[in-house]
Amino acid sequence: MKKNSSAKRTFEWPTVTIVGVGLIGGSIGLALQSRKISHRIIGVGRSNRSLSLAKKANAITESSLKLEDAVAEADIVILATNVSTIPNLLDRIDECVSPGTFITDAGSTKNTIVSAWEKRRRTRHGRFVGSHPLTGSHKSGPLAASQTLFDGRVTVVTPASRTPDDDTRHISNFWSALGSNVITMSPKLHDNILAATSHAPHLISAAIALSTPSSAQPFIAGGWSDTTRIASGDPELWADILLDNAVNTGKVLSKVAANIEKMLTAIESENRQRLVKLLNRAKEARDALGG
Amino acid sequence: MKKNSSAKRTFEWPTVTIVGVGLIGGSIGLALQSRKISHRIIGVGRSNRSLSLAKKANAITESSLKLEDAVAEADIVILATNVSTIPNLLDRIDECVSPGTFITDAGSTKNTIVSAWEKRRRTRHGRFVGSHPLTGSHKSGPLAASQTLFDGRVTVVTPASRTPDDDTRHISNFWSALGSNVITMSPKLHDNILAATSHAPHLISAAIALSTPSSAQPFIAGGWSDTTRIASGDPELWADILLDNAVNTGKVLSKVAANIEKMLTAIESENRQRLVKLLNRAKEARDALGG
Repeated sequence: MKKNSSAKRTFEWPTVTIVGVGLIGGSIGLALQSRKISHRIIGVGRSNRSLSLAKKANAITESSLKLEDAVAEADIVILATNVSTIPNLLDRIDECVSPGTFITDAGSTKNTIVSAWEKRRRTRHGRFVGSHPLTGSHKSGPLAASQTLFDGRVTVVTPASRTPDDDTRHISNFWSALGSNVITMSPKLHDNILAATSHAPHLISAAIALSTPSSAQPFIAGGWSDTTRIASGDPELWADILLDNAVNTGKVLSKVAANIEKMLTAIESENRQRLVKLLNRAKEARDALGG
Repeated sequence: MKKNSSAKRTFEWPTVTIVGVGLIGGSIGLALQSRKISHRIIGVGRSNRSLSLAKKANAITESSLKLEDAVAEADIVILATNVSTIPNLLDRIDECVSPGTFITDAGSTKNTIVSAWEKRRRTRHGRFVGSHPLTGSHKSGPLAASQTLFDGRVTVVTPASRTPDDDTRHISNFWSALGSNVITMSPKLHDNILAATSHAPHLISAAIALSTPSSAQPFIAGGWSDTTRIASGDPELWADILLDNAVNTGKVLSKVAANIEKMLTAIESENRQRLVKLLNRAKEARDALGG
């Protein structure tokens, strides 16, 4: 009896196809296996190199260079590629999935991706709801993948106004099953918030790194290293994000520039009290928000 | 024989007086004891509270609220207080030390402090050479102190043009004895470099924290937390640093603003290749410089 029931164990998503087996895709594969959510994980990539690394890391159970074949067999498809590639890939994937197959992505911007899908939603085969697991790292590649990457971390699920509630719930359940805390919001609000918490800070961090002469190397301490850590992220991936969320990011940069200006004014007028007040408010914000 | 030679063990700096027993002062006390460099460490503070915390942390062997008495007995005096207080404290200390007593500080800016001392150098009792251990932290207070804070970290020693080589060597030896790698340079060059590696990044980090709405809290991930970590530092301490090194910090901020502008221009003109190039250069700088 026991043996039988074990053999009959039903997986909620028996076959998962992950397109893009880098840090995020690889970590999804590892989490799906360690949590016994799926027994077949097909990794799709553009090169054998990344796929064999993902297999070596046990992030996938099989690999394929043929997107169309790999998604046809999937119960759910996850796109974990750079954001600029996602709209076209969604179109290609949708041509080949079984009708009703769930599709999601893990892109760091949401409005462009969701809008592209929604334009032809009524003629689609699959059911797509966009997602963004807030688990980025300055590391990349399947060898950096971790089965606990999503544990207790927020994943934002971003239905369009016309997305059926059932679809949103299904995709939310998927990320919950991986250990994430799911928050649902519109793609626009997502992009607005992430400009402040991630995209603008990334650009600023890169600008600080660009502004530091290499001769300063012996004098680098923890502060600089922390402040610029994210500048070490993948330039191609971040170029896509910044180009896609340019307007929101620009607004946050204006706000940061205004706050820098406030502090500079206090410094130039030697208004110590005012400067301490601003630094105090910054400290309070950091202590309240930061982990 | 063995016992005798052990009993006769001479300490290089038998009595050290540390003025200001926060993170840096406390860590100096702990390192001096663990490395058996001193057997008497007198902590001087403005309140019994910080002194009793420092004693509790075993950072000092005795405490005093009387600066003048405490420095009179010292073989070397270390000032580990906020930078704006150091010039006046140096004057008060110099009145009371035995002639020829070595004095140094641990302030994050050097030019103002060293210039203040140099103005009356020929009439001084003590021998002062400025220092800056690059070991800051967003934590503060004696309870955050660590005996290994200086291990393998750079301490910059900043002689004035007229400082005798022997004095520079003596103070350098002190920091080396605590485990630091000592680099010697002029106070002006120090302040110039630190504006890029520490002071401007601090101000920018604070501006990012100030620009992030508290409603964004659930969406904060590692990137934002890293970028803003230093904004959690002591506002009073940082106000002093930024006010003192305002000109250099302003220059670095202009450079950072120019680099942000370059990236924004690439984004606005949808010049992806140019943006990737800039992000790549930022990544290379970060990877080459950062720990």
